[in-house]
Amino acid sequence: MTLKIALLPGDGVGPEVLAQAVKCLEAVEETFNQRFIFKEAPVGAIAIDKKGTPLPDATLKLCKESDAVLFGAIGDPKYDNDPDAKVRPEQGLLQLRKELGLFANIRPVLSHPTLLDKSPLKKRVISGTDFVIYRELTGGIYFGEKKLNEEGTKASDLYEYSEAEISRIAHLAFKAAKGRKKKLTLVDKANVLESSRLWRKVVKRIGESYPEVALDFLFVDNAAMQIILNPRQFDVILTENMFGDIISDEGSVIGGSIGLLASASIGEENALFEPIHGSYPQAKGKDIANPIASILSAAMLLEHFGLIEEAWAIKKAVDKSLKKGIVTPDLKENSQYGTNQVGDFIAHNI
Amino acid sequence: MTLKIALLPGDGVGPEVLAQAVKCLEAVEETFNQRFIFKEAPVGAIAIDKKGTPLPDATLKLCKESDAVLFGAIGDPKYDNDPDAKVRPEQGLLQLRKELGLFANIRPVLSHPTLLDKSPLKKRVISGTDFVIYRELTGGIYFGEKKLNEEGTKASDLYEYSEAEISRIAHLAFKAAKGRKKKLTLVDKANVLESSRLWRKVVKRIGESYPEVALDFLFVDNAAMQIILNPRQFDVILTENMFGDIISDEGSVIGGSIGLLASASIGEENALFEPIHGSYPQAKGKDIANPIASILSAAMLLEHFGLIEEAWAIKKAVDKSLKKGIVTPDLKENSQYGTNQVGDFIAHNI
Ligand SMILES: CC(C)[C@H](C(=O)O)[C@@H](O)C(=O)O
Ligand SMILES: CC(C)[C@H](C(=O)O)[C@@H](O)C(=O)O
Repeated sequence: MTLKIALLPGDGVGPEVLAQAVKCLEAVEETFNQRFIFKEAPVGAIAIDKKGTPLPDATLKLCKESDAVLFGAIGDPKYDNDPDAKVRPEQGLLQLRKELGLFANIRPVLSHPTLLDKSPLKKRVISGTDFVIYRELTGGIYFGEKKLNEEGTKASDLYEYSEAEISRIAHLAFKAAKGRKKKLTLVDKANVLESSRLWRKVVKRIGESYPEVALDFLFVDNAAMQIILNPRQFDVILTENMFGDIISDEGSVIGGSIGLLASASIGEENALFEPIHGSYPQAKGKDIANPIASILSAAMLLEHFGLIEEAWAIKKAVDKSLKKGIVTPDLKENSQYGTNQVGDFIAHNI
Repeated sequence: MTLKIALLPGDGVGPEVLAQAVKCLEAVEETFNQRFIFKEAPVGAIAIDKKGTPLPDATLKLCKESDAVLFGAIGDPKYDNDPDAKVRPEQGLLQLRKELGLFANIRPVLSHPTLLDKSPLKKRVISGTDFVIYRELTGGIYFGEKKLNEEGTKASDLYEYSEAEISRIAHLAFKAAKGRKKKLTLVDKANVLESSRLWRKVVKRIGESYPEVALDFLFVDNAAMQIILNPRQFDVILTENMFGDIISDEGSVIGGSIGLLASASIGEENALFEPIHGSYPQAKGKDIANPIASILSAAMLLEHFGLIEEAWAIKKAVDKSLKKGIVTPDLKENSQYGTNQVGDFIAHNI
């Protein structure tokens, strides 16, 4: 199989970790006789610096022409602390999601046996956790109309959902549940929000076509508790954009390290794969960022195209690095292995 | 001192736990020679059943005429699972907050030494945790315009904040930080939301009048991680309504039991005190609900009126019940003590 893969390293540690994912994909090319054509383009703060916009046209074009996008990270503190900034790196990612129609963000949450000790949660609480979050990614308050009055004293964001937006991701999530533990939990705030009530109505109706899947509902505040009180109760969690942003980052803590978690963002015609961690600017250039999340993003990419054996080879190599302790300092105090060495080790073991 | 206290037991276990708080306040009356005048009124699902509305006029009037409101709990599953319900119990609480102008919800988060084992989080992570969340309570998406198109296929909620709304709670939060560990963390999503950028701007400016308080900013997704990764880093967290709802429930897990957590909702002229747990309908009438959160709400009420010694007496009696294991089954498996007995024990020890 030949796949055209757009590489968008982005900001902070993005380029460093993405380079390790590419090493692993190159190892897959050799070992499994596949062919990946990589092309790189700027996005985020670095694109603002170079081109004045966080998502240059050429970058978007490249992504549209590719089979998949492998993304690094985005964000720079110099924009975060300037509420008046007119362009922001994050706009690049949001626009890319929208333009590519990546409406479903899929984040697996697993407790890794070798990392149970790293988690702030007790072993008995997290061991055996295995759920997946389906987060709506191109709607809701992220993309609703934004307003600021002239005096700069009143601001608003519109939180909006249509039946069509809810229904397409709900079908994906039900299908996933069907192939797993057959449970779907909708996380919403239907006791307060009109849009949540629409979610509940639509998801209930769609659920009737998946009678084998048990459907339940959880208010987001309660969900924020349940995820850490008893994560094993979950199988597939379906939720809207903003709630998904919050609870999937919360859920990342279960695995013992955010440096391990990958995500897939899927649309009708395109797909993007990225670590869930941010640009981690404090670590930039220090060769200490954990490359595993980025490497596992590459594995998700392969799975997406049915290259199951290849994805498995990457995951097995990652497991080996964890078991042998060939990991970055976030996973083992005083570890002498850097981003590059961990990447090399994993690539060599594919 | 004579205080007029409106009692709003509400739904589910609300009446049972509130009765224990009243017992304790009666003990305070005797021991400290204070006088509390209690008047009760319906709110929530029970008020819908009786009067057709979750906040009857007479209830609102009573609250306005009282010095403070002691609240039980609200909510009934029969409304949650009906997305088309026209009246909902929660509207009663939301309307009450709005009508009484209770713009600041204050939730302390503490790790209790005798309960470290109950928390899903590791001892080394949570011990010594002591922060307080200031959640804006009468603005944001809870109260913005709600719309549903005629076909019922599109729904929206407006998320809106004004400088005045932000500034009044920010001042409260900075003052609290000044009297504590002198750190304030604003939790927002300024990389996406216009309203968050307004929060950041206003809070930054107000921070200049509190030079002794260190101000920092955290995106809500990151905050959802940090609260469980390293809760000791926080002193005062300031945030808007919806984010506050989510992260304060998440934070409740630190204490080992949501059954212990009280909150104060403060306005210019009124104040309301309530457990943070919900109506817990499965436990209704079973004499198993933990009354401590409600009892500690009463202690917060006393503190609010400067009755520090009295509040301290309640807290000491609660500590004693925890240390002696005179607690409900949520805190000790197979405990033979019920809601009433725990309430009696605490009241007798005041
Ligand atoms: C960078 C930011 C805009 C983004 C989001 O909020 O969606 C990130 O937190 C994520 O979850 O991918
Ligand atoms: C009952 C509900 C409307 C309420 C809220 O969301 O504010 C509750 O969760 C709370 O936190 O007091």
